[in-house]
Amino acid sequence: MDRSAEFRRWKAQCLSKADLSRKGSVDEDVVELVQLLNEREQFFTTSSCAGRIILLDGSINGFEVQKKDCCWLLVTHRPCIKDDMVAALKKANGDAILKFEPLVLHVQCRQLQDAQILHSVAIDSGFRNSGITVGKRGKIMLAVRSTHGLEVPLSQEGKLMVTEEYIDFLLKIANQKMEENKKRIERFYNCLQHALERATVTDSHSKEKINEKNNPYSHKKKRNRAKARGKCVTEENDKELENDDDLGISVTIFPEDY
Amino acid sequence: MDRSAEFRRWKAQCLSKADLSRKGSVDEDVVELVQLLNEREQFFTTSSCAGRIILLDGSINGFEVQKKDCCWLLVTHRPCIKDDMVAALKKANGDAILKFEPLVLHVQCRQLQDAQILHSVAIDSGFRNSGITVGKRGKIMLAVRSTHGLEVPLSQEGKLMVTEEYIDFLLKIANQKMEENKKRIERFYNCLQHALERATVTDSHSKEKINEKNNPYSHKKKRNRAKARGKCVTEENDKELENDDDLGISVTIFPEDY
Repeated sequence: MDRSAEFRRWKAQCLSKADLSRKGSVDEDVVELVQLLNEREQFFTTSSCAGRIILLDGSINGFEVQKKDCCWLLVTHRPCIKDDMVAALKKANGDAILKFEPLVLHVQCRQLQDAQILHSVAIDSGFRNSGITVGKRGKIMLAVRSTHGLEVPLSQEGKLMVTEEYIDFLLKIANQKMEENKKRIERFYNCLQHALERATVTDSHSKEKINEKNNPYSHKKKRNRAKARGKCVTEENDKELENDDDLGISVTIFPEDY
Repeated sequence: MDRSAEFRRWKAQCLSKADLSRKGSVDEDVVELVQLLNEREQFFTTSSCAGRIILLDGSINGFEVQKKDCCWLLVTHRPCIKDDMVAALKKANGDAILKFEPLVLHVQCRQLQDAQILHSVAIDSGFRNSGITVGKRGKIMLAVRSTHGLEVPLSQEGKLMVTEEYIDFLLKIANQKMEENKKRIERFYNCLQHALERATVTDSHSKEKINEKNNPYSHKKKRNRAKARGKCVTEENDKELENDDDLGISVTIFPEDY
């Protein structure tokens, strides 16, 4: 079977399966994005979470809460109010942790080039920890991930370690992050539409090697064009992308354009 | 210039440049790993941070602290004691945030296959958020990243929002995470050595297509072999890797082995 046919088969199989997540459906905030991707023959999504505030109760075993043994005291994909969190915390009898987790999206791609385009769009939309995986049978997957959310231990063996005032303060930050995450998802959707339009134009008008102008990896040029349109990229996002060398990470700059 | 020659040129250029990070040198805990990679012709590292506890002071602007404007009140690659953190917090006049950041490592790879091997080793060692980037000029980069560390807001406009008891509690968790991160780096080093040995054997004894047995993406088989050796993979890590479908993420399982 050729690669395209194999990909179509994988896609059909995957999309026909039941949604096995606890929630059992795609989160509202990513429905359009997931749809846009699945409508395209070169992509299909295999998992998604739009972003959420969660309160986990478990025992911290060395590095992180063991997912298997932990219990979810609260999950919300919408802004969270203090009273709900305080009520949920009362049920904790282990080490409760509040997390804000931004968008996570896994997209299987037909070709490496499709993954490159999507990766570029993800980075430009603020999802800087995105990356490609190439499996043993040639499956190409893009994982869309953001930089850190929040991870805040709140109680120890059932004993609350912070004040209600702190919880209020923390939720304001978590809710802001959720708002910003939503903006990034919208930006991702808009950027993706543009990128797919450009790719279609390139594809139908020329089968030549994609030139520099249309190449997804001309980050700076693309960002500048996007800024001129005021659509895909914010100044804030730009700063983030360009200040990596200010992170204190031991770094040798790329000899040329990466 | 052929790809190999171009890669050698990039590597030579990159490794001859000065280290432009604030610290100006490679962190002690990753020196051996960085060396092991740079000794191999198919890899070179472009940036690294072994893992650290940091206290940032800045203003939270929507989603995250603006790196450009924020100030580092404390940075340590070793376990942190409460008194040092309390002293550093006294200097905060904005919104101080404590973070634990696990290993981040960027490795440029000669071929996609080299990146696949390294990616597999990273995942098997617990660095689950690792991913490949393919640049416009064909540069192939693996970013080694872990799942969330810690990100805990501690003060608001200079006012401390938590107790000293909480800081003590939090630092115990941060220090545990640092310890576990160090173990993962060691595991990464050991796994990488094994993978490179296997790759060398494969390369020198056979130029055939790499078969399933030696393929870096036979995660389960590899993990089982590794467990039998007791070297590269812990039970805990296994659980983490296998419980992704328990994350509440809207997920359709892969039709076959990914």
